[in-house]
Amino acid sequence: MAPKGKVISCRAAVAYGPGQPLVVEQVQVDPPQKMEVRIKILFTSICHTDLSAWKGESEAQRAYPRILGHEASGVVESVGEGVIDMKEGDQVVAIFNGECGECIYCKSSKKTNLCGKFRVNPFKSVMESDGKCRFRNKDGIPIYHFLSTSTFTEYTVVDSACLVKIDPHASLDKMTLLSCGVSTGLGAAWNTADVQTGETVAVFGLGAVGLAVVEGARTRGASKIIGVDINPEKRIKGEAIGITDFINPKEIDVPVHEKIREMSEGGVDYSFECAGNMQVLREAFLSTHDGWGMAIVLGIHPTPKLLSLHPMELFDGRRIVASVFGDFKGKSQLPFLAEQCMAGVVKLDEFITHRLPFEKINEAFQLLLDGKSLRCLLHLS
Amino acid sequence: MAPKGKVISCRAAVAYGPGQPLVVEQVQVDPPQKMEVRIKILFTSICHTDLSAWKGESEAQRAYPRILGHEASGVVESVGEGVIDMKEGDQVVAIFNGECGECIYCKSSKKTNLCGKFRVNPFKSVMESDGKCRFRNKDGIPIYHFLSTSTFTEYTVVDSACLVKIDPHASLDKMTLLSCGVSTGLGAAWNTADVQTGETVAVFGLGAVGLAVVEGARTRGASKIIGVDINPEKRIKGEAIGITDFINPKEIDVPVHEKIREMSEGGVDYSFECAGNMQVLREAFLSTHDGWGMAIVLGIHPTPKLLSLHPMELFDGRRIVASVFGDFKGKSQLPFLAEQCMAGVVKLDEFITHRLPFEKINEAFQLLLDGKSLRCLLHLS
Repeated sequence: MAPKGKVISCRAAVAYGPGQPLVVEQVQVDPPQKMEVRIKILFTSICHTDLSAWKGESEAQRAYPRILGHEASGVVESVGEGVIDMKEGDQVVAIFNGECGECIYCKSSKKTNLCGKFRVNPFKSVMESDGKCRFRNKDGIPIYHFLSTSTFTEYTVVDSACLVKIDPHASLDKMTLLSCGVSTGLGAAWNTADVQTGETVAVFGLGAVGLAVVEGARTRGASKIIGVDINPEKRIKGEAIGITDFINPKEIDVPVHEKIREMSEGGVDYSFECAGNMQVLREAFLSTHDGWGMAIVLGIHPTPKLLSLHPMELFDGRRIVASVFGDFKGKSQLPFLAEQCMAGVVKLDEFITHRLPFEKINEAFQLLLDGKSLRCLLHLS
Repeated sequence: MAPKGKVISCRAAVAYGPGQPLVVEQVQVDPPQKMEVRIKILFTSICHTDLSAWKGESEAQRAYPRILGHEASGVVESVGEGVIDMKEGDQVVAIFNGECGECIYCKSSKKTNLCGKFRVNPFKSVMESDGKCRFRNKDGIPIYHFLSTSTFTEYTVVDSACLVKIDPHASLDKMTLLSCGVSTGLGAAWNTADVQTGETVAVFGLGAVGLAVVEGARTRGASKIIGVDINPEKRIKGEAIGITDFINPKEIDVPVHEKIREMSEGGVDYSFECAGNMQVLREAFLSTHDGWGMAIVLGIHPTPKLLSLHPMELFDGRRIVASVFGDFKGKSQLPFLAEQCMAGVVKLDEFITHRLPFEKINEAFQLLLDGKSLRCLLHLS
């Protein structure tokens, strides 16, 4: 264990520019400040949001050098002043959508899981408390943070609001998935939609998030779970997790929503858009049952185009809402999700398709870029 | 009382073409068929939807000759085969958004108030059962129906699904308002938003529907009710009913949503768009609190333009939904609303600004066109 209260020197994968291969090199990690925690990361994985930031898709998101990554699990190395809910050695999972517990949002009960201070913010690149970085490279240049977590490193410093303490007996490798993708999809089914036994669901886009929606709907007893993807190979994984039907839009000659309405007595109760595509979102909206159907947006839509919906269409009783981090209040509610995973109620195995040592992180990026992996777990230490 | 089971000859105001003055003339009204009821109308009033249909704003809506009108109260003259919940002499209120009680929508508990057969449909111009008209003019030409009600007549025939039986002691004149405008606005606050004591509200457009939202929010104990209208005269009526603040967008030099956020600690819990204007709808959306705010669309948007919202804006936790007939299941729930009005919990007096005899219906149209009336009650018989 590294010395507490001192700078730690360790390996990290640093992004130096848009689309450039990450450089695995030695960095300096400062000790945690007030209400911060320094953790030793044991597992980290890659999500499409990391890819977007790495590619620098949005100019406002560009900040280099930077340590990307936001899905990770590890153990607490040391805590800063004021942190009382975690101590050295605790098992933790990082969350990019924090929960300070003190603001009107956090105190709002079920109204929202968007914290006033630590809600997901892809434009933030420094620590909340002092606007500074806790990382420096070998030349002493500050390295920017990402999504309040920065997990592509052996050690990182995060606000305690962005860490969830989990059961010491939990398998940390699988718990890594709770950092983002699985919680986002599963929570959209559990919390945002609140799927009930016998209800029907359509999931557009069967990546990790979409498949986590499937898992969430399956565990709630949905009677029909229609998976939609233009990649025919997704059917196999989808069926392993729980889809009851599969539609490849390229293989049918009617709009997807017509097919889904036909298969579900007028439309599904809930549809989930996990593709980040506007036309898909419109199909998802129209696939729901009039009167009460709800389309839930999970995909990131980089297009400047506005919603392809007319206000009068809302009068048919269909609703459209977005879901961030599955509407989970992370610190409060993820321990329960972790328990459900440990008890086997929620199954995580299917989501880990690859494992690689940390230094092969660029290879792991390529796997996701090529659509070959759901989650590739990078092992540190 | 006219002879049962026979054709009744009576006065009606007939629309013969878009924007042409209504012709008050003798018409023939057929007896009610299976599951239909013929009623003697005692009071009717005019809503903007009547104006739209009268102007023929949408080509698909044009059907002449036609008897418009959908807000009315009266007494049952006779019932058709199978009608068991009403009998001759019962006091009734017409509803354009019916409730058959038998379809999956009606049986859906709180999920929707859109009936599978009798939901609001401005394009329907004949009776559901046989696709025919129950009216004929003096030349024997069939006269089309409107919104399943057609109330600008001394007698009309409607499906029993579109009639609500109310307390025999209720004052029918005021009950006329429950047919549309007041139920729509008040129900949007009670049912769609479900405003709770201490919550905050903004209402865009202080016509009858907007003011009914104000009444709904007031009766629920909203702590702040901000009225927004470009007509400065609306402040007085608004204050009489319950607004706590008034904004005239023409009198401020910042966008309305900024002003409202400033007045309400970051945004109101609910905003209601009763203007049918896309830019106003966007302001209403942005006026709500991030994390949990809900914008409720009540206005009719004739523009072909799509929603002025980007899907990523939904990730701030604001929601947008539409509300039809205040989410009331009419036959089941309006009797309770009528009781609340009779008990003085809900106040209707402010909504009736004018009263005229039926034959002055064109004058009443002009009052609404000129923005001078909220509701002008036309007295028949």
